[in-house]
Parts: sequence; structure tokens; C-alpha cells
Amino acid sequence: MDNRRVILDGMGGDNAPDAIIEGAVQAAGAIPCKIFIVGDEALIKKGLAARGYSGQSIEAVHADEVISGHEAPVKAVRTKTRSSMVVGLNMLKNNEGDVFISAGNTGALMAGGLFILGRIQGIDRPAIATTYPIFTGGVALLADSGANSECKPNNLLEFATMGSIYMEKVIGVRNPRVALINMGTEENKGTTVLKAAYELLCKSRDEYGNINFIGNIEARDLPIGVADVLVCDGYVGNVILKLTEGLAGALFQQIKSKFTEGAVSKLGALLLAGKIRGLRDTFDYSEYGGAPILGVKGALVKMHGSSNANAVKNAIIKSIPYIENEVVQCIENTVLEMEAVAIDSQD
Amino acid sequence: MDNRRVILDGMGGDNAPDAIIEGAVQAAGAIPCKIFIVGDEALIKKGLAARGYSGQSIEAVHADEVISGHEAPVKAVRTKTRSSMVVGLNMLKNNEGDVFISAGNTGALMAGGLFILGRIQGIDRPAIATTYPIFTGGVALLADSGANSECKPNNLLEFATMGSIYMEKVIGVRNPRVALINMGTEENKGTTVLKAAYELLCKSRDEYGNINFIGNIEARDLPIGVADVLVCDGYVGNVILKLTEGLAGALFQQIKSKFTEGAVSKLGALLLAGKIRGLRDTFDYSEYGGAPILGVKGALVKMHGSSNANAVKNAIIKSIPYIENEVVQCIENTVLEMEAVAIDSQD
Repeated sequence: MDNRRVILDGMGGDNAPDAIIEGAVQAAGAIPCKIFIVGDEALIKKGLAARGYSGQSIEAVHADEVISGHEAPVKAVRTKTRSSMVVGLNMLKNNEGDVFISAGNTGALMAGGLFILGRIQGIDRPAIATTYPIFTGGVALLADSGANSECKPNNLLEFATMGSIYMEKVIGVRNPRVALINMGTEENKGTTVLKAAYELLCKSRDEYGNINFIGNIEARDLPIGVADVLVCDGYVGNVILKLTEGLAGALFQQIKSKFTEGAVSKLGALLLAGKIRGLRDTFDYSEYGGAPILGVKGALVKMHGSSNANAVKNAIIKSIPYIENEVVQCIENTVLEMEAVAIDSQD
Repeated sequence: MDNRRVILDGMGGDNAPDAIIEGAVQAAGAIPCKIFIVGDEALIKKGLAARGYSGQSIEAVHADEVISGHEAPVKAVRTKTRSSMVVGLNMLKNNEGDVFISAGNTGALMAGGLFILGRIQGIDRPAIATTYPIFTGGVALLADSGANSECKPNNLLEFATMGSIYMEKVIGVRNPRVALINMGTEENKGTTVLKAAYELLCKSRDEYGNINFIGNIEARDLPIGVADVLVCDGYVGNVILKLTEGLAGALFQQIKSKFTEGAVSKLGALLLAGKIRGLRDTFDYSEYGGAPILGVKGALVKMHGSSNANAVKNAIIKSIPYIENEVVQCIENTVLEMEAVAIDSQD
């Protein structure tokens, strides 16, 4: 249990600190771990007391500044050194905890990760890896999902390598299938960067065996689970995540309004309520935990900005294998071994 | 009725020539127009006879070669000069018809459009503009949706300008709202190209008034109709179209299988059958007609490769305002007027 020390950003996200505190209490009741909630100590203690919590697992760590969602990331991290995010990141760096989880400003968390924790040697661009729901069950991992809007072929290889390790060690998929999101499945498809990335991914698979690269896939096939690690730049990854969220939201909004127009439909909707809920839950990000920021020297997790208590609880619980299976260490070792191929192929 | 001469590629697409012939017969019954079906004359005449068609509106034009879906586009267009696609494009060029519609090889149609019809002066990159379904009703226009994987800022301005004209003249939306698909709504978001395109779109709006640019939008908001013309490069456009298709397909597949498990659900699904069908129809591309290839000197329309007869019929019917409102001429005039801004800002 020594290495199950979770540091939580108590002030980050739309529902902080309440959802953070509630999620921590729920997680502490579910698994053995130590949880540090960083933020306004008085508020946090009040929140814990209000929930009747008097255990030893959760501890408040004071930080008297907050980085809001709209602040310029680099400036915020540089100047607000007493913010919950910066204090939390420093705790992780100083080994006062094993993972840092935040629902706060994504850019600031990326910047803070780079400045305070630093990059893993051999990784040019850390990536946000987000779980993507598969209709037939399970999840895929989308990397990058928003951190790097412009990528070189080599960056895409890094995302593939890191995503593959995370998928295997944390999600438990053996020999995960890695695919490049492209405009067609043929090998000569796409932009100059995509074509070069395709070659690099083949080379890495054939010469190092570090990834199980299965080739290009089209966006049409993402929801049916044709691959486990979905590689793309952060612009495309962002479009995929947001569009999926938007389509699911609009669709269930329509189901809600249309299916309850008229008595016959209302009855039908009532009879199908469980099934509709089941379908909707496929898209419920709060079930899937947070998104690891892979490539920094520390276990760093980004939660959705509008995370509720359930999302916080799940992010904590699902961060445990991230710690215990030493994902960061494993990425360091793998990248070191394959650095040659990366250097050879940089453009 | 003189200018309602539709040229159809009788041999392009997964369901050619049957779906093409059937769609032509349906369209000829619905609107006054002349339809030339280009392809294997014997087959086409047989198909017309089998449908009891003996009218004067539809005419078969012989072409004894076919460009298949998997041929290398440029080579196919250069060498198969007797193919239905090349013959049809030449008819359009020689003013033997007013629009050419094909469900065939997209790359070949683009290449053929460029070689045979030529680019409109001032347009660097023609784009495929696809209608995108809005949940609350109506459609938006996605440009580019796959023709140009790599774009300069200036290309995105071209897509915005041409898409805006098409949306106004053909779909009938006055002063259409043009938006740039980005990773966030703030003006400084995205890649170098997106940032430069943002500035160019603002400049064009403010100095020329040719577009109603409303700024950046996130992919999350596409399905709810926050804009009428959705501007992006062809890689992102392809991802958006294919992902939407894939998600809708997977979702209705789930609805079909899950909602009919067990007697209670079956009854519920029966009561909701009409509503479920209505929702599914939102995603039925066959209702929306074809996708114009904007920027070439002629009215050119690409249909979905798997178009059925209904899609063909609708593509023909919806091509009429494309012809009658002289969209190509209007693009030529607009681009000529604003060429200065385009040249100033090319990178």
C-alpha cells in the first residue's frame, strides 16, 4: 500500500472542490490507498466533515492559489507557484505521492508536467491519451487527444509506443493493436506526415517489435473496435473526442424529446428505459477514469473538466494499476532501447 | 428546361448500372429534365426497358470503358479516355450537358475535373463539399471533406468562399454562417495553418464582405447546427464524415440488437419503430443528394460510392438549383473580385 499515494487537485474543474472531495471519500471507501487533496485546507476539511468522513486515508494539503480554466497555461504555472496544481505536481516530483490527478486547466497541466516533472528522455512530445468507448464492449486508447496540434512522424511513433504500454499495463490488453487514423486503409494514403509515420511505425514494429502496428484505419471503424491504440495528431484527436461527445449528446437529447412525444411512444420509451440507459452509459466518460499524460517523468492524469464525484472516484481507482505496473518506468526503458530508430527517422 | 441537362456516370459506384438507371427513371418522373446516362449502351437500354421506360427524357450515351474504384486516379483518367467518367466530363466541358454526376472513383473524378474542366481562375484547390446532417433539422456544408489532406490558409479561405456561395444558392440559406473547425473557440487556437486561416477569414469578411465568418467552432457543436459552412482540411473533413457514419451505424446496430432482446423490449421497440426510423433517417445520406466538387469550371457532383436508386434520384433533383443558379459562374466572379486578398496572404 506504500505506493498507492494519490495526489488530487482539489480546486481544478467545474465542480471543485465538492465533486473532488466526494469522489475521494468514495474511492477511500472502495480501495486501500492514501489520498492527498491539495487546495483550500479549510474548505476541504469542511467538505470531509460534512460527509461524516473521519478516517486516516484522506489528508488535506493546503494551497492558497487556484489556476482557473481560462488562464494562459505557461504564465499560470510560472506565476501561481502556490496553486493547488503546482503544489500537487511538486509533491509528485518530490515523491510525496505516486500519481497526480487534476480536472483543472489542461494546458496548464501539460505545461506544469513539462516544467516541473520534465520529459522522459527520448520523448519529444508528451501526449494526452484518452479512453475511447467501443460499442461492442471495452475501450480503445486515443493518443494524442489534444495536446499536440502539429506533429512530426516521430511524435506519432512516440504516441504509439507509449499508448501501447499503457493499454497493456493499465487496461490489460495483451499485445494491443496499434493503428494510424488516416483517410483510407491503403499504405500510401494521407498527408506527408502520415505517410512518413506509416513507414516509421512499420519499421519500429519490424525492427524492435515494441508495437503491434496493424496499419491505417478510417474513422468509420473507430466505434467498432478494430484497434486498441488509435494514433493521430492532437487536432484530429480533439475532433474525434469532441464529435463523439457532441453526436452522442445530440442523439440522446433527440431520443429523450422524440421518444416521449405521445402516449404510445412514452410507453415504448418506458419499456426500453433500461436499454436506452445502457446505450447512453457507453458514452459516459465518468466510468472510464482519467486520461494519462504520457511522456512526462511521473504518473499524471487529466480528468474531464466537468468531472462529477463518480468520475473522480473512478479516476482514482483506475490510477492504481498505472502506479503499480510502473508505466512511467516502462516507457523510459522502452524509449531508451529504441532511441536509435527514432533518431534515424526524424524529419 | 434547356439548361436542365444532367449527365450521369452510368458505370460508377458499387451499385452501377442498376441503381443509376433506376434513380434516373425516378428523377425523370419527378422533374422535367434531360438525362444522359453514359456507359455500356446495351446494358443501359436493357435496364430502361426492364423498367418499362420508353420516354424521351433519358438517353443512353455509349462509353465502352469503366474506371473502377481501386484504380490509380491520374493514370486512370489519362489512359481510359473511353471510360464513362471521361466521356461524361468531356460532354460537360463541351456544353452537351449542364452537370455531371458520378458515384465512381473519387480521386479519378477530382483528377478528371482538374484535367478536363480545369480550375476556376483564382482557386488553388477545388474541394469536395458534403452536406452534414443537423439534428434539429436542415444541413450544414462540410468543405473540404476529403479532397485535400494538406491545406494552406488560403485554401481554407477558398473553401469558405465557395461553400458559402453553394449554401446560399443551392441549399437556400441566406447569409450562411461560416466557421472554422478548431480545437477551441478562442481566436489563437490550433495549428499554424488554422491561426493564419482565422486571420484570413476575418480579413475577407471585413474587407470584402463575401463571407459571414463567425469564428472557430469545436467538433462537439457540429451536430447541433451552430454554423452553416464548416471549414477544415480534407483529412479532418474525412474523419468527421466517416466517424459520423461509423457512430450512427454502430449505434443503430446496437439499437437493433439490444432493443429486440426480450419480449418487453421488443414491444417497446415496436411502439417506437417510427421514431427510431425518423432518427436513423437523419443520417441517411441518400436523402441529401450528392457532394459538389467546387472550384472546377463546371457543375460536378460526387455521389457516395454505395449510392442506391434513391440517392441517385435525389442527387439529380438537387443538382437543378446548382445549375439554374449559376453557382460556378458566381464562384468565378467572386474569386476574381477578391483575388487581391488571396494573393496578399498566401504563404
